[in-house]
Amino acid sequence: MSLDGFIAGPDQSVENPLGIGGDQLHGWVLPLAAWREPHGFPGGEVNESSKVVEEEQAGIGATIMGRNMFGGHPGSWNPNDPWNGWWGDDPPFHHPVFVLTHHAREALALKGGTTFTFVTDGIESALDQAREAASGKDVMLGGGADVAQQYLQAGLVDEMEIHLVPVFLGGGERLFDGVGRDLHGLELVRTVATPDVVHLKFVRR
Amino acid sequence: MSLDGFIAGPDQSVENPLGIGGDQLHGWVLPLAAWREPHGFPGGEVNESSKVVEEEQAGIGATIMGRNMFGGHPGSWNPNDPWNGWWGDDPPFHHPVFVLTHHAREALALKGGTTFTFVTDGIESALDQAREAASGKDVMLGGGADVAQQYLQAGLVDEMEIHLVPVFLGGGERLFDGVGRDLHGLELVRTVATPDVVHLKFVRR
Repeated sequence: MSLDGFIAGPDQSVENPLGIGGDQLHGWVLPLAAWREPHGFPGGEVNESSKVVEEEQAGIGATIMGRNMFGGHPGSWNPNDPWNGWWGDDPPFHHPVFVLTHHAREALALKGGTTFTFVTDGIESALDQAREAASGKDVMLGGGADVAQQYLQAGLVDEMEIHLVPVFLGGGERLFDGVGRDLHGLELVRTVATPDVVHLKFVRR
Repeated sequence: MSLDGFIAGPDQSVENPLGIGGDQLHGWVLPLAAWREPHGFPGGEVNESSKVVEEEQAGIGATIMGRNMFGGHPGSWNPNDPWNGWWGDDPPFHHPVFVLTHHAREALALKGGTTFTFVTDGIESALDQAREAASGKDVMLGGGADVAQQYLQAGLVDEMEIHLVPVFLGGGERLFDGVGRDLHGLELVRTVATPDVVHLKFVRR
């Protein structure tokens, strides 16, 4: 999240899914070995943020995401040749992914253990399915902001890690919009500060 | 600032100038000896936030604030009996204060060295007058958000300390709204983390 509250910049598009300036929010993570390894790249840096990323990725058994994070508007899905989202033939998840959408679609099994299952009956159903698929491991909430907001307001978030990047984006997709007047049971339990990003971890009381 | 970006809650009024829930943003500072002393109260706590408050208050020679922070809408000012703002007869500033307003008014000298001067010709004029009055000391930008935004966008802010409080207010007065796509020359130089507040200090490169 930027200092002014955005997780993507203005004018998001298929060509520029992070919006104008949105790439600045990821500048701290892309060089890390802890990010490169699960994405199939060798090498990379180790710094104070590494343990945060490792902790966040450890023990994830399933992911939930919104339609936009899977691959944009279903108008772009050709039923005869449906595309596989932003994530290519070998997505970096390596576990079951549940996509919240209003448009039913057959599940999609890709290389490396990633399957996309399309859920049309709401956030609680997606969570139930993800929990079962995760077999006791954690369920990661992938985004976007609207998905995070829905789970937050339903009181279904047990942990939240904010990566606060000290930049302004001036507009775009706001992470916390109309999220109510309390933290829905969460409290700040740990802060890791670096010049490029401040990691704020919240856990259910 | 709350985690969702507000420096006051919704429904601000004369009775409730911080808006609904806005008092949560000040919960960390009110018990501190470093806050109590300049406000005329004895005692108080010393903790990790103390040095941040002391550093922020040290060497301030003048303050600039908006009309609302002085004392609400001038419709509430009776020219025959103008009130002295929110701050009482002995305001906690103890130095010259410049109030940005569209309504000219005689300067107001109160107890303890605080004078309020009302500036109607813009933010640069107010800064010039405050700098001269400060005689080499720092000029504090008091708020509200619109005043901070105007000085930020004009590139006139040399230091910025954000006290990020891990709560949601759900609405209200947003600190950073339409502040552009860069930090106007500022960069994050120091973070102090506590469970109740995270202090983020930005300084001009």
